[in-house]
Amino acid sequence: MPILRYLTAGESHGRYLIAILEGLPAGLKIDLTAINRDMASRQQGYGRCGGMRIEADEVEILSGIRNDETIGSPLAFMVVNKDPKIDKLPPVARPQPGQPNTGVGAGLLKYDRQDGRDILERASARETAMRVAVGAICKSLLKEIDVEVAGHIVSLGTVQANTAEMDLPQIRERSEASEVRCADSDATKKMITTINEAKSNSSVLGGVFEIITTGLPVGLGSHVQWDRKLDANIARALISIQAIKGVEFDQGFEGGVSKGDMLIVRATMRPIPTTIKPAQAASVQTGQEVKAIVEHSDVCALPAASIVGEAVVAIELVAALLDKFGGDSLSELKRNIAGYRETCQQR
Amino acid sequence: MPILRYLTAGESHGRYLIAILEGLPAGLKIDLTAINRDMASRQQGYGRCGGMRIEADEVEILSGIRNDETIGSPLAFMVVNKDPKIDKLPPVARPQPGQPNTGVGAGLLKYDRQDGRDILERASARETAMRVAVGAICKSLLKEIDVEVAGHIVSLGTVQANTAEMDLPQIRERSEASEVRCADSDATKKMITTINEAKSNSSVLGGVFEIITTGLPVGLGSHVQWDRKLDANIARALISIQAIKGVEFDQGFEGGVSKGDMLIVRATMRPIPTTIKPAQAASVQTGQEVKAIVEHSDVCALPAASIVGEAVVAIELVAALLDKFGGDSLSELKRNIAGYRETCQQR
Amino acid sequence: MPILRYLTAGESHGRYLIAILEGLPAGLKIDLTAINRDMASRQQGYGRCGGMRIEADEVEILSGIRNDETIGSPLAFMVVNKDPKIDKLPPVARPQPGQPNTGVGAGLLKYDRQDGRDILERASARETAMRVAVGAICKSLLKEIDVEVAGHIVSLGTVQANTAEMDLPQIRERSEASEVRCADSDATKKMITTINEAKSNSSVLGGVFEIITTGLPVGLGSHVQWDRKLDANIARALISIQAIKGVEFDQGFEGGVSKGDMLIVRATMRPIPTTIKPAQAASVQTGQEVKAIVEHSDVCALPAASIVGEAVVAIELVAALLDKFGGDSLSELKRNIAGYRETCQQR
Amino acid sequence: MPILRYLTAGESHGRYLIAILEGLPAGLKIDLTAINRDMASRQQGYGRCGGMRIEADEVEILSGIRNDETIGSPLAFMVVNKDPKIDKLPPVARPQPGQPNTGVGAGLLKYDRQDGRDILERASARETAMRVAVGAICKSLLKEIDVEVAGHIVSLGTVQANTAEMDLPQIRERSEASEVRCADSDATKKMITTINEAKSNSSVLGGVFEIITTGLPVGLGSHVQWDRKLDANIARALISIQAIKGVEFDQGFEGGVSKGDMLIVRATMRPIPTTIKPAQAASVQTGQEVKAIVEHSDVCALPAASIVGEAVVAIELVAALLDKFGGDSLSELKRNIAGYRETCQQR
Repeated sequence: MPILRYLTAGESHGRYLIAILEGLPAGLKIDLTAINRDMASRQQGYGRCGGMRIEADEVEILSGIRNDETIGSPLAFMVVNKDPKIDKLPPVARPQPGQPNTGVGAGLLKYDRQDGRDILERASARETAMRVAVGAICKSLLKEIDVEVAGHIVSLGTVQANTAEMDLPQIRERSEASEVRCADSDATKKMITTINEAKSNSSVLGGVFEIITTGLPVGLGSHVQWDRKLDANIARALISIQAIKGVEFDQGFEGGVSKGDMLIVRATMRPIPTTIKPAQAASVQTGQEVKAIVEHSDVCALPAASIVGEAVVAIELVAALLDKFGGDSLSELKRNIAGYRETCQQR
Repeated sequence: MPILRYLTAGESHGRYLIAILEGLPAGLKIDLTAINRDMASRQQGYGRCGGMRIEADEVEILSGIRNDETIGSPLAFMVVNKDPKIDKLPPVARPQPGQPNTGVGAGLLKYDRQDGRDILERASARETAMRVAVGAICKSLLKEIDVEVAGHIVSLGTVQANTAEMDLPQIRERSEASEVRCADSDATKKMITTINEAKSNSSVLGGVFEIITTGLPVGLGSHVQWDRKLDANIARALISIQAIKGVEFDQGFEGGVSKGDMLIVRATMRPIPTTIKPAQAASVQTGQEVKAIVEHSDVCALPAASIVGEAVVAIELVAALLDKFGGDSLSELKRNIAGYRETCQQR
Repeated sequence: MPILRYLTAGESHGRYLIAILEGLPAGLKIDLTAINRDMASRQQGYGRCGGMRIEADEVEILSGIRNDETIGSPLAFMVVNKDPKIDKLPPVARPQPGQPNTGVGAGLLKYDRQDGRDILERASARETAMRVAVGAICKSLLKEIDVEVAGHIVSLGTVQANTAEMDLPQIRERSEASEVRCADSDATKKMITTINEAKSNSSVLGGVFEIITTGLPVGLGSHVQWDRKLDANIARALISIQAIKGVEFDQGFEGGVSKGDMLIVRATMRPIPTTIKPAQAASVQTGQEVKAIVEHSDVCALPAASIVGEAVVAIELVAALLDKFGGDSLSELKRNIAGYRETCQQR
Repeated sequence: MPILRYLTAGESHGRYLIAILEGLPAGLKIDLTAINRDMASRQQGYGRCGGMRIEADEVEILSGIRNDETIGSPLAFMVVNKDPKIDKLPPVARPQPGQPNTGVGAGLLKYDRQDGRDILERASARETAMRVAVGAICKSLLKEIDVEVAGHIVSLGTVQANTAEMDLPQIRERSEASEVRCADSDATKKMITTINEAKSNSSVLGGVFEIITTGLPVGLGSHVQWDRKLDANIARALISIQAIKGVEFDQGFEGGVSKGDMLIVRATMRPIPTTIKPAQAASVQTGQEVKAIVEHSDVCALPAASIVGEAVVAIELVAALLDKFGGDSLSELKRNIAGYRETCQQR
C-alpha cells in the first residue's frame, strides 16, 4: 500500500548484498559519505566480533541517480562482500532432538533444504546492512524537511543510562561519541565493563535502544484502517530486525497518527546465546559429530542494532510522508508540506 | 502481499460496522454462534463501561456463504449499532494549547476537519468489533488444522497472575471463567479489587495480556525479506489495537519463522486517562466553554483487548498459512498441510 | 501499492451487494443522486434482459460520511437486492465432456464445489454494480479538479458510430440521450435494428466502447516501474470487467504517464452465446438431464459495460492522482494540484 | 497481493541493469544458459537497430542461489552494460509547443527535471532486459510442471501470418528459426521485405505478437475480486511493455480463471515514429537549436517485444500458481499441484 517500497537480497557470506528502493522523489542529493558513515557505524560498537577488525562495507549506487541526485528511477545499491566465502564454509546440520538449537531448523523444513547454511546465510543480521543503506537515504530526505532520527542505547545488560536531563542534540552528540552509542558517559563505562566481563565468561548481552524523532509533521499514518497506523508499521519494522523481540511506544501518537512533536520508541534486543558456546552437532553429509560452527562472536550487537533501528524507523516515516504528501520531486514534496504546515498553523 | 486481506468500516456511533474479508478457502463451515460469542466477550469483562449493560453486538453475514459454508467469494459482515446516535452527539472541540488532549488533534489537522467527532468516531476501539468477527472466522479455520489461539490476562495494574504451572487447556478454561479473563483465580480476585478501587477514585488501569498459540505448523512466515517475518506482522497487528503500546515475543520463532511448537506473545495496554475526568473545552461552534465529553468510562478495557488480540493474531496466522500452503478450498488446504507435515516428520 | 483500495462482496442473487472504499480524502460531498443515476444507467440500455423491467438498484452509504461529506474514514456501500432468490434457484451442473460450457467448470474445480451456482453467483456481472458505485464517487472527486470521464459506444455488432466531428461535451450529451449510449444518432438507429434482429434469432451481440477523459493533469502514473504505468493499470481494470476481452489505447500516454490532455481508451466486449440458447445438462444431485439454466437474456450488455468502464477508469485515475498528490482532505489535494499545475505552466 | 514480486532498476545507458525477484520456491535449478538465450533473443530479430552488432547482454546472478539452485532467498540479477555512456550523452530538450514530441515531456514535468535524458533513460525499452531475465526463470519453473509459454509474430505491418494448421511445438520451432520470430515461412519472407522497405524510407513498423501457453492447471486466478482475475493481470503486464498499446484475449479463461487448456493472448505494438527522423530541437542549456537525438533506430522491435511478452506472461502465471498452490520448495509446489490435479481428474 505505501508508495515507497524496497527489497533486499544477498547472503551473509555471498559475493554481494543488493537492494532496490523505489518511490523516492527526484531531486534528492545522495551523499554517499553519509550512507557509508552509517554503514560503518553498523559494523562498529564495542562488543562486536570480539574486537576483530572488519574491513568497512562500502555502498555502491548502481542506478537511479545522475550527478549524485535522484531522478525518480529506482535506486539500486550494492555492497561487495570482502570475504565471500560462502562456498568454502562447511554445511550446517539440522538440529536433532536433544541438540542445541542453531536457529535453522524451521527454515530447513520450510524450504526443504539439507544444509542449514542455506537458511543461516539469509537469516543472518548481515542483511540489515542494506536496510541501513536504504535508511540512510531516507534520513537524508527527512533532513530536507527538518526531521531528525536518532538512536541511542538506554540499557545494556543490567546497566541503565540516564538521559532525563538531555535534549536530542545532546543525546545524539554524546551517543555518537560513545563506544556503545550511549549518551550517558557513566553508563558507557559500566557497559564496557559489562561487555568485558561477558567476553571473559563467553556470555552474551541484550539490552534496549531508543529511537527519537523530532520535527515530524502532525498527521502521518492514519487511524482509519488497522494497517495504516504509523506506530503499527514502525513496530513491524523494528521487530523485523534480527534478535529484536520487544517494542514499546512512549510518546508521539494519537490513534496511530503522528502528533507532530517528538516520537519516542524503544526496542528490546535479546542476547543470542547459541552462537558463542561451541557444541557438538552431526554433519548432514558424514553423520559424524562435528564442532558446531561459531558463525560470529558478538558479545553485544546492541549498538549496531540501534543503527538499524534508526534506519527502519526513517524508512517508515518516509513511506508515511509520501503517502500523505505525494510528491514526485523534492520541490513538489516540500511545497506540499509547506502548504499543509501553513494551514495547520492558521487553525 | 498476503493473499488474505480485509478492510473494516464504520463509526463508533454510526448505524453500522462493516467488514469485507477476502481470500478464505471455500468449504469452511461458519459458526455464527462462535463468532457472536467472541463478539460478546469483547463487550464484557469486569471494569468495562462502569458495569453498564450493553446490548450485545450481533454479526450478520451479508455475503460469501451458502448453507453456512464459505464458497470462495469475499465475506461481508455487518453489525447494526443498537444506539446509532452519531448525529445527535455534540461536536468535539479541537484541543487548544494548555487544554487536556482528547486525542483528536492530530486527526483534525490531518483530515482538515472541525469537529473532533469526525476523528473520534473512527479512531475509537469500537472498530475492533469487526476485527473480532474476522478473527473468529480465522480461529475456526485454524481449529480445522488443530491450531488453537488463546488469550489471557497476565497483569492488571500492579497485580501479576501466576500461570507457570498451567498448560494451555487450563489457561483457556480458567481465563474464560474469570471475570477479568485471568487464569489465576487469586489474581482474579485482586484484579477485581483493583478495578473497584480505580472506579472509586476515577482512575484507569492498564496491563498485559498474552496470546498463546498451539499446534502451529513449522515454517509460517519467512526470514528472507523483512516484511514477511511472522513475528513482525503479528507485532504490527497487535500495536494496531487501540491503546496497545508495547509488544514482546517470548517463544516460537526462528528468524521470523514459526518453529512449530507454541507461540507466545504479550502486549501491553496503556491506561487511557483522558476519557474519565471531565474537563472544560471550547465548543468549535459557539466558542463557549463546554464540559469535555466523557465518551466512555471503561476503568479497564484489558480483558476486551485480549479478545481483540486473539483475533488479530489468528488473522495473521491464517494469512501466513495461506501464503505457505495456498489452497482455494479447505480440502485442498488440508491436503497441502498434511503432505508437508508428513514430509517434515520423515526428515 | 496505491493508497486508494477497494473490495467488493456479494452474490448476484444474494441479499446484498457490498463495497468498502478506503483512502479517499475527507471533505468530498457525496451526491447519492449522482451515484444512483450511474447505478440506473448500468441497469438500462436497449438490449438488456429482453426489455424486462428491473427495479432500480439503490445505493445506501453505511459509513464514512457525515452530513453527506467524507471524513477520511472508509466508505461502505450497500445495495439491497430486490429479488434475493439465491436459495431457491436450482443447482447448476458442472459441464461434462461434450456438453456446452456454462462457464463455471474452472471455478468448480478451483474451489472444490459441486453446485455451479457457487461460482456463477459471484462471477456474474452483477458484481459490477458496486464498481459503478465506487466509480461514481471517484468521478465526483475528479469533477472537483475539472476532470471528466465519459464513455460511449463506438461499435455494436457490425454497426460503426462516427464521432469524428464531435467534441467531448457533444459525445457525452448525445450518448446519454441514446438508448444504446451511442453519440451518433444514425448509428443508434441501426444498432437498435441490429439488437431487434439478434433478439428475434436468439443471438447475442458484442461491440466496442470508448472511454474519454479530459482535463487530466500531466504526470499521473509512472514510467519507472512496470506496475506503476497508468495505461497498464487501466488495462487491468477494463479487462477485469466481465466479457471484456480486448483493450486498446489511443492517445494520452507517454511511457505509462498521462500527457495531460485527452486520454482515449477502447474496450472490446465479446458476445456471450452460452446464456441464451437453452441446452441439456445433468443435475449434480439427481444425475438426470435438466434444462440448462438461462441466467439472463441480455442480447447486448455493451451500453451497461460502458458505464462500468467509466467507473473503473475513474477509479484508476483517482488512485494515480492520490499517489502523485497525496492529500488527506479535498482542500489539501486541491492545493497540491494547484501548486503543481502552476509550476508546470511556469516551465 | 501476489506472493511473487519483483522490482527492476537501471538506466538504458547506465552502468548496470538490476532486478530482485522474491518469492520463488527453493530447489529450482537455475540454467544461466537458458536465461542468456532469452536475453540474446530480445536483442536480436531482423529490423532491430539497423543490423548493427550489439554485444550480447549477459546476466549475472548476484544472490539467492547455491550450487545453481534457488534456496528461498531473493534472487538478484545484474547485467553490466557494455556501453555505459550515460554521462557523455547530450541533454535532451523538453519539447516546446510546435516541436516534435520526444516522449519525455510528461516525465519532465512529473519529476521536475530539466534534462529529458533523466526520463528517457528509464522509460526506454532497455529496462525490459531485466523482465526477460525474471521471465526466463519463471519459464523454467513452469517447465517443471509441464507448462510451456511460447510467443510468435502473427502480423507485421500489413503482412499476416497463417498458423491455423500448426500445433504449439511447430509454432515454437518455426518461429524460433525465423529471423522475425514468425512461424509462417512465407510470411517471414514478406515481413523481411517489408522491413527492408521501411528501412529504406525511414519509416517504422508495428504489428501483433501472440503468446500461447499450454499445460496450465485449471483454476489459476480468481473470479471473486476484480484484481485477482488472471486475464486482467496478464493485460496489465503486457500493456506495461514499451509501445504495446493493445491486448486481446482469445481463449483460455472463465471469469478470469484459467480453464486449464491453452491460453492465447495477443498484443499490438505501435510503430514508434519519433525516433528515426531527425528533427530540430532546442538545447535546454544553450537555447540553441540542436539536432534531435536519434536514440536508436529500430525499424521493427516486434520480435524483441514478443520475447518480453513471453517473459511477462510467464511471470504472471507463476504469481498465480504460487497464490493458488503455495509451496516454499519445488517439491512442495509439485506435491500440491499433483494432489490438486488428481482430485480434479477424479471428479
